[in-house]
Amino acid sequence: MRIELQDCIKLLREKDHFLIVTHARPDGDTIGSAAALCLALREIGKTAYLYNNPEFSDNYMEYAEEFLPRGDFDHRFTIGVDMASRDLRPIGFLEEIDLCIDHHHSNSIFARWTLLYDYSSCGEAILEVIKALPCDMNQKLAELLYIAISTDTGCFCYGNTDANTHRAAAELVDYGARNGYLNKKLFRTVSLKRIQLECMIYAKMDFYRDGSLAIATITLDMLEGLGAVEDDCEDISSLPGRIAGVMVGITVREVAPDNCKVSVRTSEQYRADKICAQFGGGGHTMAAGCTLDCEVQKARELVLKAALEETG
Amino acid sequence: MRIELQDCIKLLREKDHFLIVTHARPDGDTIGSAAALCLALREIGKTAYLYNNPEFSDNYMEYAEEFLPRGDFDHRFTIGVDMASRDLRPIGFLEEIDLCIDHHHSNSIFARWTLLYDYSSCGEAILEVIKALPCDMNQKLAELLYIAISTDTGCFCYGNTDANTHRAAAELVDYGARNGYLNKKLFRTVSLKRIQLECMIYAKMDFYRDGSLAIATITLDMLEGLGAVEDDCEDISSLPGRIAGVMVGITVREVAPDNCKVSVRTSEQYRADKICAQFGGGGHTMAAGCTLDCEVQKARELVLKAALEETG
Repeated sequence: MRIELQDCIKLLREKDHFLIVTHARPDGDTIGSAAALCLALREIGKTAYLYNNPEFSDNYMEYAEEFLPRGDFDHRFTIGVDMASRDLRPIGFLEEIDLCIDHHHSNSIFARWTLLYDYSSCGEAILEVIKALPCDMNQKLAELLYIAISTDTGCFCYGNTDANTHRAAAELVDYGARNGYLNKKLFRTVSLKRIQLECMIYAKMDFYRDGSLAIATITLDMLEGLGAVEDDCEDISSLPGRIAGVMVGITVREVAPDNCKVSVRTSEQYRADKICAQFGGGGHTMAAGCTLDCEVQKARELVLKAALEETG
Repeated sequence: MRIELQDCIKLLREKDHFLIVTHARPDGDTIGSAAALCLALREIGKTAYLYNNPEFSDNYMEYAEEFLPRGDFDHRFTIGVDMASRDLRPIGFLEEIDLCIDHHHSNSIFARWTLLYDYSSCGEAILEVIKALPCDMNQKLAELLYIAISTDTGCFCYGNTDANTHRAAAELVDYGARNGYLNKKLFRTVSLKRIQLECMIYAKMDFYRDGSLAIATITLDMLEGLGAVEDDCEDISSLPGRIAGVMVGITVREVAPDNCKVSVRTSEQYRADKICAQFGGGGHTMAAGCTLDCEVQKARELVLKAALEETG
């Protein structure tokens, strides 16, 4: 059931021995939010740990590490953060979620109690919770929340960024978050492998419809040749759409032999979801995806045909 | 002489027939600030135009165009915005500046009256001025100021971004600035030529000192081969420093035969200005430049030698 902030605070003050759970394929928002909530609960005298999500990447592990239980931890209350549905529980975590704190419109209200905000990041929701606990803000809390908010909004650049996002960021900088230092680390540093991968993708990219339709192909061979890992592929499907003039950007990625993930991004004029629906996929009108169980060149050919029809 | 906000408002209310002047090599901050000030002055009943800076680029002309005088304009009061010194008056503008509104620490207080703020962008200063005029904010004013603020802070990513920057952005979004739309246009769209140029630069980049020293070379041939223009080269000297692990990033750019511009960016451990001082250049400790009158490979060799000494 949905609850209000004051009910959520009541639960957090009454209960103890919290296990805070990040979502599957964890990103900066779920990790920064979970770590900040864990730290704030400890600061008001509670026992709290993070679930050791097996998918924590090296990039983010430094923020989670100190909050992981050293051995077994006998928890009594589970909190899911930034988790829109039961399916998004992390690998190996099969328990129910007692309290979910989230910002996704699509949240399925699967937890026993759900505090749901209409914010661009879960970090903004956690900021509200921490202030209402109340727990005094400090630099460390501010930086964990800054990581959550800035990563989910592409450093305030994505379309989800709103006035509240900026207001929260101002508050966190006032509390001592070193935004310049964190931005350099999170947004202005790229691995050489990522750069080489992008250049390889751009070199092989094909254009149609006077350059308004771009299609990128990423094969297992390309990734293996570069020794690129999953971290190097983050948000890779945004590449075609970055190019000036592209209104339909398609990325066909071979994830296993005869198994391709396709991502389609469009401008307002075209329907990404219609293109993907032809292959059993779906999503939003301007960002959608589908999976094709065939060889990568065949997948490319099929999706291109559907996209040419949509733009014809 | 330096003046306070209230003195500035008094001048703006007393005077009329304003000519608002952007700085040489105009950027988004000077153009957005100047256009917003011009519009606000018109809204309170004044006659105001922008000086037709011959260096307005195509990218920004759309924001300036409607404020340019159609024929001769007999102005009586000149306002320089985002202009740190007399040398930064635009090409063809030889008059003195009556009032300067700026945010550069280094402002030489060259104008008759100077209103100087310690903000990350001039747009934040103009927002204060417009509110104090007072002129009611509207979507158009908010968007012009959003362009000013966001471009000068790299969409809130550069180290100059502070709490006031975010607070101003929140206010402008509340006033109707379509930040998502503007961000896509200003920051998330890249020309295909720029991408090809970056890939060519990365492919030819050399690394030393276990990858902590990177040197990029850009030749006239490369630019000509791609048909790349100056707009495609914006901030190109930041490329080597973006790579994870690079602590000294050098860009050697051939600007004419036997004439090379060198840019050096370093992390705190090394001195960019010391490397450039060997060739008569200078700058900040972590970002400096110099010019070498020799062939590009020779320039590369000389600067690399100096950088290897600094990091040795």
